[in-house]
Amino acid sequence: MNANETIKPYVIGLDLGGTNSVFGIVDSRGEIKATTAIKTQGYDNVEDYVDASVEALKIIIDQVGGIDTIKAMGIGAPNGNYYTGTIEFAPNLSWGRNGIVPLADMFSKRLGGIPVGLTNDANAAAIGEMTYGVARGMKNFIVITLGTGVGSGIVINGQMVYGCDGFAGELGHVIMRPTDGRSCGCGRNGCLEAYCSATGVARTAREFLSKSDEPSLLRDMNADDITSLDVSIAAEKGDALANRVYEFTGEMLGEACANFAAFSSPEAFIFFGGLTKAGNLLMKPLLESYNKHVLAVFKNKAKFLISGLEGSSAAVLGASAVGWEL
Amino acid sequence: MNANETIKPYVIGLDLGGTNSVFGIVDSRGEIKATTAIKTQGYDNVEDYVDASVEALKIIIDQVGGIDTIKAMGIGAPNGNYYTGTIEFAPNLSWGRNGIVPLADMFSKRLGGIPVGLTNDANAAAIGEMTYGVARGMKNFIVITLGTGVGSGIVINGQMVYGCDGFAGELGHVIMRPTDGRSCGCGRNGCLEAYCSATGVARTAREFLSKSDEPSLLRDMNADDITSLDVSIAAEKGDALANRVYEFTGEMLGEACANFAAFSSPEAFIFFGGLTKAGNLLMKPLLESYNKHVLAVFKNKAKFLISGLEGSSAAVLGASAVGWEL
Repeated sequence: MNANETIKPYVIGLDLGGTNSVFGIVDSRGEIKATTAIKTQGYDNVEDYVDASVEALKIIIDQVGGIDTIKAMGIGAPNGNYYTGTIEFAPNLSWGRNGIVPLADMFSKRLGGIPVGLTNDANAAAIGEMTYGVARGMKNFIVITLGTGVGSGIVINGQMVYGCDGFAGELGHVIMRPTDGRSCGCGRNGCLEAYCSATGVARTAREFLSKSDEPSLLRDMNADDITSLDVSIAAEKGDALANRVYEFTGEMLGEACANFAAFSSPEAFIFFGGLTKAGNLLMKPLLESYNKHVLAVFKNKAKFLISGLEGSSAAVLGASAVGWEL
Repeated sequence: MNANETIKPYVIGLDLGGTNSVFGIVDSRGEIKATTAIKTQGYDNVEDYVDASVEALKIIIDQVGGIDTIKAMGIGAPNGNYYTGTIEFAPNLSWGRNGIVPLADMFSKRLGGIPVGLTNDANAAAIGEMTYGVARGMKNFIVITLGTGVGSGIVINGQMVYGCDGFAGELGHVIMRPTDGRSCGCGRNGCLEAYCSATGVARTAREFLSKSDEPSLLRDMNADDITSLDVSIAAEKGDALANRVYEFTGEMLGEACANFAAFSSPEAFIFFGGLTKAGNLLMKPLLESYNKHVLAVFKNKAKFLISGLEGSSAAVLGASAVGWEL
């Protein structure tokens, strides 16, 4: 058996996003050996999606030496449940909206029975950081993904936290403002995601613009078109209002992390995703707010880190790491 | 070795409280075979406290067959750190206020080298529930202790959550009201403990009484003397204001649990301590509030339970369970 094991040096990682599905074949050091992609949408049913995936995958599997070199596959997907390998009622997937899709099983059957693991994208990011990134060697940390939404992957005692049902780690939906909170896509009000996602940042900018006549570079744009990137570009140019938008965002996130510390006292908070490109614009007020709000016993303990996984390949690496865990 | 092991049927549990230190010798089924107690305070230094403890302990150890029948000792203590076996800067202990007390080591040396484990009282309660109580067989649950303060013990993947420093699980100090929150003993504002502890309930009662002229049985008392027990007695008698105090408390606690679910999606929340005697006065609004506030994916999943460990012996059983874990 051992001799057979050693000739399986690769795992497949699939970053299943709302727009694109990116596949990578990855070795144990996190080097991506081959990559391909298909559109996620545009398939009427999941069978067609898996057919198209396997067709694209076969080409890169052949490039690395065939299916016998592949140990496992890992998938990071919205509404992914690790326990069952299913995608459950994912609102943004045309073929996954209305039910429970056994995607891990479907890929396993089509790929010669290799083990396939599936979890949500934020958990995949956390496993990726633990396997290849800044969390190597850490036993207790929290990854917070700052993209269109806010997600999280929590590791405690060296293990992913999936909870009783596979859906633990929804820190984007902790209520930060129980009174007069912003409406959130989840149907409730005051969630962290409504403030600290990329869309939350744009919303804060629009709010600040509408509340005063203060001059700002952002007034040159149509308010509805403002993105978090526009705000960070304006802030870098010294725009005071845009700077305050990131201060507000960082302060809110610091306050949230102070509450998360009371839960699991992590060694580090690791931030992942588009909003981290703002760098110190976000991280400075975040750290100040954390130290102001956190319970005395936790002060100056946790590290605040930005993901060590590079740009567009980070999500694929995270997904592949789920495969190594199997 | 096995033969020796089998003749060690007992562990010692120590519930180290601010007033009393209660010792019990407990068998593996959670039956308390012998018990004794000393005052916690009134010792100038920790050596004198341990001397008095060991003197009291010797009598009950002899009652059960001598030190060779004792497998280990477990201690539940304020500001207890499991990783180091120390009590750290415990404000309510005359001999533990100003430093780090290596209490586990001190007891081990005085008790023939048996292993001694120490953790905070809420974690001891959680281990107690897992060993002897309603959490037997559960892998993911949260115990919330509702006493003078609010404490918590969190179990994930079948393991206690101690975090990177031994102090995880301070859910009494999650901020529930970031704006206009009540002052808390920790020096910050808006903590769960300021609302949902026994003292928080009394504070709510005083607040409600001062804000209106509504008749209430509680007006017969000196406002400063009102306790959570007085409020529950008045509520049981049909006092509308007293009922609203428990509704307010339960609602706040339900809101908090909804946030905790987003973290670890536990199978159950288990409530422990004096305030649980209010029963449905507290649990009914708590459950309604939880289901109102929790993210849709978690609705109707977690159980809400009251501790299965009996009254005054619960804390000793919890502490003894720490001993079995060693």
